[in-house]
Amino acid sequence: MSLEENPDSLILSDDPLHPANLIPELCRNFYQLGWVTGTGGGITIRLGDKVFIAPSGVQKERMLPKHIFVLPFPQPEPSPHTDRESQCTPLFWNAFDLRDAGSCIHTHSQNAVMATLLWPGSTFTISHQMIKGVRVGGTGRALSYLDTLELPIIENTPNEEDLKDSMGEAMKRYPDAAGILVRRHGVYVWDGGLHSTFVFVAWICTHLIFQCLDYLFEIGVKMKLAGLETVLTT
Amino acid sequence: MSLEENPDSLILSDDPLHPANLIPELCRNFYQLGWVTGTGGGITIRLGDKVFIAPSGVQKERMLPKHIFVLPFPQPEPSPHTDRESQCTPLFWNAFDLRDAGSCIHTHSQNAVMATLLWPGSTFTISHQMIKGVRVGGTGRALSYLDTLELPIIENTPNEEDLKDSMGEAMKRYPDAAGILVRRHGVYVWDGGLHSTFVFVAWICTHLIFQCLDYLFEIGVKMKLAGLETVLTT
Amino acid sequence: MSLEENPDSLILSDDPLHPANLIPELCRNFYQLGWVTGTGGGITIRLGDKVFIAPSGVQKERMLPKHIFVLPFPQPEPSPHTDRESQCTPLFWNAFDLRDAGSCIHTHSQNAVMATLLWPGSTFTISHQMIKGVRVGGTGRALSYLDTLELPIIENTPNEEDLKDSMGEAMKRYPDAAGILVRRHGVYVWDGGLHSTFVFVAWICTHLIFQCLDYLFEIGVKMKLAGLETVLTT
Amino acid sequence: MSLEENPDSLILSDDPLHPANLIPELCRNFYQLGWVTGTGGGITIRLGDKVFIAPSGVQKERMLPKHIFVLPFPQPEPSPHTDRESQCTPLFWNAFDLRDAGSCIHTHSQNAVMATLLWPGSTFTISHQMIKGVRVGGTGRALSYLDTLELPIIENTPNEEDLKDSMGEAMKRYPDAAGILVRRHGVYVWDGGLHSTFVFVAWICTHLIFQCLDYLFEIGVKMKLAGLETVLTT
Repeated sequence: MSLEENPDSLILSDDPLHPANLIPELCRNFYQLGWVTGTGGGITIRLGDKVFIAPSGVQKERMLPKHIFVLPFPQPEPSPHTDRESQCTPLFWNAFDLRDAGSCIHTHSQNAVMATLLWPGSTFTISHQMIKGVRVGGTGRALSYLDTLELPIIENTPNEEDLKDSMGEAMKRYPDAAGILVRRHGVYVWDGGLHSTFVFVAWICTHLIFQCLDYLFEIGVKMKLAGLETVLTT
Repeated sequence: MSLEENPDSLILSDDPLHPANLIPELCRNFYQLGWVTGTGGGITIRLGDKVFIAPSGVQKERMLPKHIFVLPFPQPEPSPHTDRESQCTPLFWNAFDLRDAGSCIHTHSQNAVMATLLWPGSTFTISHQMIKGVRVGGTGRALSYLDTLELPIIENTPNEEDLKDSMGEAMKRYPDAAGILVRRHGVYVWDGGLHSTFVFVAWICTHLIFQCLDYLFEIGVKMKLAGLETVLTT
Repeated sequence: MSLEENPDSLILSDDPLHPANLIPELCRNFYQLGWVTGTGGGITIRLGDKVFIAPSGVQKERMLPKHIFVLPFPQPEPSPHTDRESQCTPLFWNAFDLRDAGSCIHTHSQNAVMATLLWPGSTFTISHQMIKGVRVGGTGRALSYLDTLELPIIENTPNEEDLKDSMGEAMKRYPDAAGILVRRHGVYVWDGGLHSTFVFVAWICTHLIFQCLDYLFEIGVKMKLAGLETVLTT
Repeated sequence: MSLEENPDSLILSDDPLHPANLIPELCRNFYQLGWVTGTGGGITIRLGDKVFIAPSGVQKERMLPKHIFVLPFPQPEPSPHTDRESQCTPLFWNAFDLRDAGSCIHTHSQNAVMATLLWPGSTFTISHQMIKGVRVGGTGRALSYLDTLELPIIENTPNEEDLKDSMGEAMKRYPDAAGILVRRHGVYVWDGGLHSTFVFVAWICTHLIFQCLDYLFEIGVKMKLAGLETVLTT
């Protein structure tokens, strides 16, 4: 049966690394680790000319392949988005369009939110920590221990989709940033990936950059609260 | 065999979403996430003219369908409650009677208890955080990022059932509140749900509101301890 | 085959609630919850004239029924203890002899250790919290919300068995205490239990008292660090 | 088929305690406990004339036996190391060469990193805590409650392998230390083990020493932040 006959064929696969299988597995893993709660946050993977998106409004630990949305890449105009889709979609597209990303993660991590509160300016900065897991711009060379990591912080809006423009501007202004913090809200992290059949590699990279950044938010917040400097000038 | 012949038929079902199966599963999940300890806290689901209640005095991680109590809704007078039943029952009924709730959760969350200690007045308030998962009164429209969440805090009593009146008064005085904090004790959270066969939807909503509120207690406590304002006046 | 012919028959049972099966299961559970690490801590259950003890020197998450020691109760003189046995044995016996306990738990909980550091005197005290899970002396009536919980803190010694006398003295001086804190070391918690075939009930009670006390150490430490009074005089 | 014919025979075993099976199991366990994130950290086990090493660049929770590297012991000159191997290899070899270790663990534990920030000098010191799980030099007698634990802290370098010399010097200067802290980076812990067929014993010991040290970093950091002295002079 062709795709026209059975649109579900896009999300039915025996391959555990297929995006429609991998996204729910990873959502459960994130839930068990306490990184997402309830329906907060979102995940997307681009595989060639298809984009797979975890929906809003479904509990992360109960997500199934049938819940995954599939959108064409690039997007046709006007956009075919529906109401039930993830509110993160326009922001995920920033990562695809501006960084040629293979995947993107959004969380409401309390470490990220506290970082945006304790760094009241327009960027989060930290140096001399284990930042080697982060790549320049999310896609370039790995950062070095001596580099200063700098992530822009944009102000939140009531509707998630209204962040699209300010997020895009921040991504252009900070081409080396591997993610965008949203004040009092959370973080977006992406990876250049391969947007190819090597979806697993792409996704894992984003996953690792997110873990590495969240580790840095956590240690940075602890340092601030302990009165320690987070950027060394050596 | 009819119900009169086998009252256990109320709690025996092959459907994993049946309240008598869902409540124990969720209790185990809560236990693993560290949200309940020992026999503390409680959960109820209303399904049409039946109310299913997790018992006091049974460890959350060892609860079985046979432990679940079933009460008629509405309650006959005088109440047929027994000693072995949950001490939370009269408080759960506040949610059913005053909010037409489909389910209700009670926990001794340390985030909730710390919030009642760091907000010594009669309400917990926070704004400009991810409060979109909370509904007005637990049943209305979703709150916006720009709204201020306000939850009443009532004083604790030695016997849980003696909270019924003050909890009811607070629910009437704060019709928009999606939950009630009890000083030095914990929190009650409910959802309007559908009190219909769509039990799962009802329960999940309460579950999500609880997660969202607990997230707000946690970040609010962190902000207070860091000397940050929790309500912005923009 | 009789016990004389096969001493292993004491620890071989198909019953998951048999102490030799229950202790390893609970040790794994404690490990997963982060309550014990490595080989620290210990657990004992008394069942009639037999005492079952988790050994020192075995990782909690890898314990098997064959690792469990079985000692006679009461103890013959001189004691038949061997080197490989738990160092906690003499202290567990305090709970059996002085409180007629059915079981006893010892942990190096960081909440307990921090409590002994932030309460530099001879007792840990807290009131107006959820202390209803704790029983007077570990065996009597449940405490009320209005009661003040008071636990003695004894000074540590290099060898665990040398705590036996000071722990025994503290248990006699504080007959209402449901546990003993050891400064910079941890806590011992017991329950009167039934020391009968209802082993499960006995064990669960100790387990719950431990959970409840650890909850109180945790919230007490948070309150102290936030500058809040832990005992109210109303 | 001989080893020359099938090099994979080194990492294919039905024995769950074989290093190539044990390392992935333990990595998953560490990941679930939150002790490692992403690809950070590393583990090695020496078994006679073979050294088994978990690779860099593979997620800890997805590691398989086929990912494990096997190197000869002692190392031939020049070293046959490849690019895909763990960056920790030269540092693991310090533990083998200078302490005759059976295994070694490296983590980026936040407790360890915070300890290196709150102890700005050249050593981390703590006394009068549960340090009995730590052995003198990692291989000697167990420490006593009255002993002061002292671990050297070395300064980090951008490339992990460049730590080899300063780590080796610190190990010689502090022959009693059971581990080495690396400022703003993490910790290396080893055990003398048996470097024999009793691999499991060797590994478990290192695992326990790591747990014990991380427990001490955690409680030490809490004490520092609470303004408490971490070394008592009695």
